Amino acid sequence: MSSTELVIDRRELRFALREWLQVEQLSKHEPFAAFDAETVDLMLEEAANFATEVVGPTRQETDRVGSTLEDGRVRVPQCMHEPYRQAYELGWGAITGDPEYGGQGAPSTVGLAVNEGMIGGNQALSSFFGLTEGCARLILSFGTDDLKRRYVPHMHSGRFNGTMCLSEPQAGSDVGASTTRAEPLGDGRYRISGTKVWISNGDADLVENTIHAVLARVPGAAAGTGGLSLFLVPRVHVNDDGSLGEFNDVHVGSIEHKMGLHGSPTCVLNFGEAGSCVGWLLGQENKGMSQMFQMMNEERLATAGLGLGLGSAAYQNALTYAHERKQGTHITQMRVPDAPKVSIVEHPAVRFNLMQMKSRVEAMRALLYGTTFAFDQAHVADTPQERQAHLDLVELLTPMCKGYCTETGIEVVNTGIQVLGGVGYTQDFPLEQLFRDARVTAIYEGTTDIQALDLVGRKMVMNNGALFLGLLNRFGEFIGQHAAHPRLGPLCSAWEEHCSTLSDLALGAREAVQERGMEAVALYATPFLLFASAVTASWFLLQQAAVASGQLDTLLEGHSEEEQATLLREHEEARFYDSKLKTVNFFLEVVVPQYAGALSGAQKRNYSALDIIL
Amino acid sequence: MSSTELVIDRRELRFALREWLQVEQLSKHEPFAAFDAETVDLMLEEAANFATEVVGPTRQETDRVGSTLEDGRVRVPQCMHEPYRQAYELGWGAITGDPEYGGQGAPSTVGLAVNEGMIGGNQALSSFFGLTEGCARLILSFGTDDLKRRYVPHMHSGRFNGTMCLSEPQAGSDVGASTTRAEPLGDGRYRISGTKVWISNGDADLVENTIHAVLARVPGAAAGTGGLSLFLVPRVHVNDDGSLGEFNDVHVGSIEHKMGLHGSPTCVLNFGEAGSCVGWLLGQENKGMSQMFQMMNEERLATAGLGLGLGSAAYQNALTYAHERKQGTHITQMRVPDAPKVSIVEHPAVRFNLMQMKSRVEAMRALLYGTTFAFDQAHVADTPQERQAHLDLVELLTPMCKGYCTETGIEVVNTGIQVLGGVGYTQDFPLEQLFRDARVTAIYEGTTDIQALDLVGRKMVMNNGALFLGLLNRFGEFIGQHAAHPRLGPLCSAWEEHCSTLSDLALGAREAVQERGMEAVALYATPFLLFASAVTASWFLLQQAAVASGQLDTLLEGHSEEEQATLLREHEEARFYDSKLKTVNFFLEVVVPQYAGALSGAQKRNYSALDIIL
Repeated sequence: MSSTELVIDRRELRFALREWLQVEQLSKHEPFAAFDAETVDLMLEEAANFATEVVGPTRQETDRVGSTLEDGRVRVPQCMHEPYRQAYELGWGAITGDPEYGGQGAPSTVGLAVNEGMIGGNQALSSFFGLTEGCARLILSFGTDDLKRRYVPHMHSGRFNGTMCLSEPQAGSDVGASTTRAEPLGDGRYRISGTKVWISNGDADLVENTIHAVLARVPGAAAGTGGLSLFLVPRVHVNDDGSLGEFNDVHVGSIEHKMGLHGSPTCVLNFGEAGSCVGWLLGQENKGMSQMFQMMNEERLATAGLGLGLGSAAYQNALTYAHERKQGTHITQMRVPDAPKVSIVEHPAVRFNLMQMKSRVEAMRALLYGTTFAFDQAHVADTPQERQAHLDLVELLTPMCKGYCTETGIEVVNTGIQVLGGVGYTQDFPLEQLFRDARVTAIYEGTTDIQALDLVGRKMVMNNGALFLGLLNRFGEFIGQHAAHPRLGPLCSAWEEHCSTLSDLALGAREAVQERGMEAVALYATPFLLFASAVTASWFLLQQAAVASGQLDTLLEGHSEEEQATLLREHEEARFYDSKLKTVNFFLEVVVPQYAGALSGAQKRNYSALDIIL
Repeated sequence: MSSTELVIDRRELRFALREWLQVEQLSKHEPFAAFDAETVDLMLEEAANFATEVVGPTRQETDRVGSTLEDGRVRVPQCMHEPYRQAYELGWGAITGDPEYGGQGAPSTVGLAVNEGMIGGNQALSSFFGLTEGCARLILSFGTDDLKRRYVPHMHSGRFNGTMCLSEPQAGSDVGASTTRAEPLGDGRYRISGTKVWISNGDADLVENTIHAVLARVPGAAAGTGGLSLFLVPRVHVNDDGSLGEFNDVHVGSIEHKMGLHGSPTCVLNFGEAGSCVGWLLGQENKGMSQMFQMMNEERLATAGLGLGLGSAAYQNALTYAHERKQGTHITQMRVPDAPKVSIVEHPAVRFNLMQMKSRVEAMRALLYGTTFAFDQAHVADTPQERQAHLDLVELLTPMCKGYCTETGIEVVNTGIQVLGGVGYTQDFPLEQLFRDARVTAIYEGTTDIQALDLVGRKMVMNNGALFLGLLNRFGEFIGQHAAHPRLGPLCSAWEEHCSTLSDLALGAREAVQERGMEAVALYATPFLLFASAVTASWFLLQQAAVASGQLDTLLEGHSEEEQATLLREHEEARFYDSKLKTVNFFLEVVVPQYAGALSGAQKRNYSALDIIL
């Protein structure tokens, strides 16, 4: 354990992947045949070692040095180069990439567990892996065979990186307002011209080439998102033999000066300033936005992973510090002269903060791993119906993952600083950097408000609300199965109240629309998203509780009550499962209600925020 | 209005001081005779001008340049020098200082309103004013006439600054563990030796001299806080004629590297490394801690002011940005082709965020101004009973002000970043600096958890709980007076529910102590503090609502319904009062319940956080 270096909760990751999700069962299906139990175990260990030993030690220097723009080229901190190289050499960089093109082909859930540590170790570095994989997958989904062969192997090897180019100065959250143009050259190529902003890793001296996925408008295209097409635009042209050709008139105009995430350059990119920027259509004209959503959804889940990875790292550091730091006497001994000083982990207020962190981290992990596993299950589903059911869940839960995990990641790091006190505010501990780095996650890939509108305005009304009703039904089924269980019953009963509130809020929203229009629902969309996410995360946590309870039964069976009490205190495994149950209990009774608070305005139909003149 | 420069809500400050508190009535009493209505109005305007024109423009450079330690001397950013000089020349620096020694002698409430703008303009700079005033007042309260004459005039003129030295490496929140020693030299002087940490403005080239208020232990003193004595320790000795003498063996060991607040150096101070550091006793031996609490309480209120000042600045910037930035179409026109782009202030989710900010800023202001005004009223009270009643209120509300306003300030700035989106994360706008600067406020001068323990463990049990019961009674009286009023009645009824919850929680806490000891109360102390503060802030907001409602009656009287509707839309003053009522309504129905959420754990007697093995 360390309060300054990266610590990964290996036991919890193993529990999530191997005991709860049993991810090794995916190996029964051909695409994931290589990922049996033993392999997954080994990968988890090796990835955690790599993250703590190679990646983590570069975090602080990455922040202090930052990226710079020199003579048109972006230089990232030198310390990022070696872990970047090794990540691709060892296969971590393209962990879920297509094996036909050099990727590892791991299930997304395994990729997530591998990346959780990399993110905690160096968020900026990890951002290269995820964006490049996402961009490569766009090319694999929508590109010609030539484009696939020409680009993807070099992206999976880390020689090239990838980006997504949506925003423009006048088109941030409103992507449909984009004006970048693409004029057909008649030979399948297009001349691209326009300016894109907020492009993460838009250029970097880590790589020989950067491949941009760019939304642009062909002549005569409709206004709005329906008139956008998707193009592959390399920074440098690539010859048939894979060597680099000429530059492609893509230039970095500037990089942003940000509060944090200094290692990941955020670029303004100018395409076609000299009129010679060439791009290749991916998929069909005017289908760009829906195609881009493949990558967007992937990146939204990846961004949710940032909240989790940073939150988890913060919790581990704070927990260690709370054990190391002695200060004050135990509250029950405050009046005792010469009472011994205790570690601050003994103080109730510190325990409360730590449990706020721990339970939220585990809730984020449950929500995100549960969603990601549904994505993997869709890939190997036996029937189209089964596949669709998994994909529906992913659709519905993606905005929850993005919105909830990023907001919660920030909260968790914030609480961690409070556990450390004064030193948490200094650069001597990682928390202050994690806080600055985490803050962007609730903004990029669609702000929390955008996620909330996606949830209430699109996902919840799809198929007449069938996805959301389906989810509520599954909640009900779970309660039906476990309500009578001695350990799970009380947890289910706490959860059932939240489920009812959620259902009432959804019904209330329909009435609010009739009364006051969509404004009324949009007004409370963000607190609704957070509450709905917490209730959904609770479902996954309760599944984990069921597993933990079963394991605990096995460990405690045949022991006297006294022996059982000792086991719960001293047997490491028994303690783990018992802690899991207590953590779920804390989340349900203490944390979830915190997300319900802001919705009492919705319940009271408070529209002051719409009525006031601001 | 500006989204990048400091904007002060002058109308709201005038409302708070002149319409709600009617601070000019203090001028009926001799000590504040000079501060009549006209003078207060003029001061508010001039201070706001100074903050926006002279102080605010230095904020960004102060952050970028930061303080440095060079050859044992701390250099603050050069840009701080001129506003520092002017602040003392114009009287803002020692606004509440004793006129006999060159201070302005203003009521604390006026000082607070003056400082709110300075804080928003440059928190680091403003920190010098408050700490120096507090330290000077310690000398005035506990020093000999010689010490007063020798030091205070130079502190009120800005030539010297002041600090408070409590923490040591092994004694942070646990001040009683301090080991700094003070050996009597027999002539009323003491030889001081020890190391103090986290000393804000422990040295700075802004001043000729720094005066430290230091807690130390005389030989044979008891352990704990009861054995601490308070000493005045100058960095440089001062001759009888005010000129500087020899150095006093106080050295800056290092300065902290922090997330923000770079202009205010946080020092490690070594006293008596060469055995020649001399200090003068303030007050009595072994009474140091209770004496220091005079300054501590002042600084806690001052720190609450930081949350307010930064939050207010953030709200004004975000509000302006939301008006300037055009993006997307109005939600009611989403399906209308070519619908016009609107300012983002039109989007419900943005309005929700802005109202979260606005209502919290006004709640912080209400709570802090109300408390500070009670402090002024105590000074001019006609009877000892009246004086005590005011001081009791200040005692009870000080931890609420500190805890609530600092946590809320951070929340408000955080929400402001979300309103701006991507640009809020960049250094092109002030929000990211405000976020980093604000973060320390919930830590220094006693963390939020320490405030919470002060509230539930000391203030609420003082005189058998009389202070808290007295407050609840005053809440009840207010409801009794206004429950039938057409505008205030509905607000009171929303508030009454919260008051009942607060009262139930306090009763429940007694039962929890019986069931599980003080641990059970300490566990939920922080969420209790935040909720109790929000309910108390609501009381002050409702007082404001009563004033606003009366003013609105006057403005609307004799007008038809239609004319009234037009006035509420277009008449600036009518709009202001109407907005105040809507803001109070939003705070009561949407914001206060957010603070109640975490307490459902207390209501359910959830002790998982105590039971779990962390």
